[in-house]
Amino acid sequence: MRKDIKVFAPASVSNIACGFDIMGFAIDEPGDEIILRQKETSGVTITKITGDNGKLPLEACKNTAGAPVIALLKHLGINPGIEIEIHKKMPLGSGLGSSAASAVAAAFALNELLDAKLTKEELLPFAIEGEKIASGAVHADNVAPCLWGGFILIRGYEPIDIVEIPVPDNLYCTIIHPEIEIQTKEARKILPKEVPLKDAITQWGNTAGLVAGLMKSDFNLISRSLKDVIVEPVRSALIPSYYKMKDAALSSGALGCNISGSGPSLFALSTSYEISERIGRAMQGVLEQTGLPSQVYISKINKQGPRII
Amino acid sequence: MRKDIKVFAPASVSNIACGFDIMGFAIDEPGDEIILRQKETSGVTITKITGDNGKLPLEACKNTAGAPVIALLKHLGINPGIEIEIHKKMPLGSGLGSSAASAVAAAFALNELLDAKLTKEELLPFAIEGEKIASGAVHADNVAPCLWGGFILIRGYEPIDIVEIPVPDNLYCTIIHPEIEIQTKEARKILPKEVPLKDAITQWGNTAGLVAGLMKSDFNLISRSLKDVIVEPVRSALIPSYYKMKDAALSSGALGCNISGSGPSLFALSTSYEISERIGRAMQGVLEQTGLPSQVYISKINKQGPRII
Repeated sequence: MRKDIKVFAPASVSNIACGFDIMGFAIDEPGDEIILRQKETSGVTITKITGDNGKLPLEACKNTAGAPVIALLKHLGINPGIEIEIHKKMPLGSGLGSSAASAVAAAFALNELLDAKLTKEELLPFAIEGEKIASGAVHADNVAPCLWGGFILIRGYEPIDIVEIPVPDNLYCTIIHPEIEIQTKEARKILPKEVPLKDAITQWGNTAGLVAGLMKSDFNLISRSLKDVIVEPVRSALIPSYYKMKDAALSSGALGCNISGSGPSLFALSTSYEISERIGRAMQGVLEQTGLPSQVYISKINKQGPRII
Repeated sequence: MRKDIKVFAPASVSNIACGFDIMGFAIDEPGDEIILRQKETSGVTITKITGDNGKLPLEACKNTAGAPVIALLKHLGINPGIEIEIHKKMPLGSGLGSSAASAVAAAFALNELLDAKLTKEELLPFAIEGEKIASGAVHADNVAPCLWGGFILIRGYEPIDIVEIPVPDNLYCTIIHPEIEIQTKEARKILPKEVPLKDAITQWGNTAGLVAGLMKSDFNLISRSLKDVIVEPVRSALIPSYYKMKDAALSSGALGCNISGSGPSLFALSTSYEISERIGRAMQGVLEQTGLPSQVYISKINKQGPRII
């Protein structure tokens, strides 16, 4: 049996314009790295966290990577000593599924380390356990894409129903992360409790259209469907220069552009690496005028999920 | 050039549980028949209507088949004399797209009669013109499936965006029509203007799931997605023994069962002719206990749309 393991888990984009709470996809970068080590004495301890600016708790049961490890060990009915090292390679509170990546990486790593042979379906609830600590609610629209890779539809939550949606090969994602932090919990508070039926109909036309567009490799349909009439009008107010960045992305050839997760990051989809780079430059150009620093990531859809490195 | 033409256009099921206002499919039967004849004197006249119990107006501009003919002639900039015979082969106000079938049959027939060579996309607005007379609003979720055949997603209305969704070959539809009439206009009035965001999310998870299920030929996913948490709870109250019929359909092997259009008809989807017959008998058995007469139709998805007969 292995003594230690190092795992990478990818960032993910959830909501994807029209699919609030039900859709997400994984991207090749950024992502988090987790190292697990078997130790002599029992108990789960976090020995090191880097890249979090001291924001994440070292207490394992309160940590998005620690909690899944504890829950999974309990499920397996064993109590080996486990040391966890967490290397955050993406910004926290960025709307890129940072907590999901750590939770998935930890659950996946433990499963491999102990050779426990749980399937992704079986690992999912333990990864969600970690995500719950960060967002305060059970959502799988980052955890599931991160764990499966690819584009994931969460059809429903009772019980959780994961559907893999095939995507065209030449689909590229540009991410811009403006250096402000938005807490998912806060971003949920400003959502309306009720929405006009008319808008809900528009939204479900687009969710259905997006799935059809992806499965047909119909980029024009994907583009027409990447719209959000419910969440974007509210949450865009939290992001400086949001509509200017979006306009810049669309003018640069993006199929669509919207808030990644609960923001502040934006994602834009396109059909080539060249276009996705151009989009990144255009969005960053908008932010530079405001003096707000940002990071840009260019990536294909990650089809693998977590991997041992 | 032809002197006359006879056209069949199919009934259709709209809403399809989760897809209120955005989805519909055509069925092989029932359907309406329209005969158009060129006449000596100019003007559009309706010479005969059968099967409507005297309910439909003979005045062409107020008739769902007459209006599209008038509008299409105006568009073509010609004024030949046209006689219309309408043979309603399905109940009115049944939730089976009766007005859409007449409107589509008329527009399609005129296009063929005059060899005007309009595409389906080009014919659509004229067929919608007829449907508008019946429902008082612009909806395409019966007209589009009737015109194209197959399973149609109307992604959006501004502008109208028709998406053909491939369906598995062995998909069967059972229709039961209880002999009561529900006016679409009335059925719309009882809908809520606002819906809980939570329910809207559930609904768009299901619309996305249904499209994925159809395109993957995943009958289990189709079944899990055929749910409606928004419209069914309200409109089911208009249909006697609705939930008993639905339970009977599901117990008989239906993938899903729900209100067809605005009712009172119910549709149930299944994977074989045998099951669809069993479903029909089970639903009719429920209605017989109430003394309410009904018709049952068994059909595959109609993939052709209107045809010359």
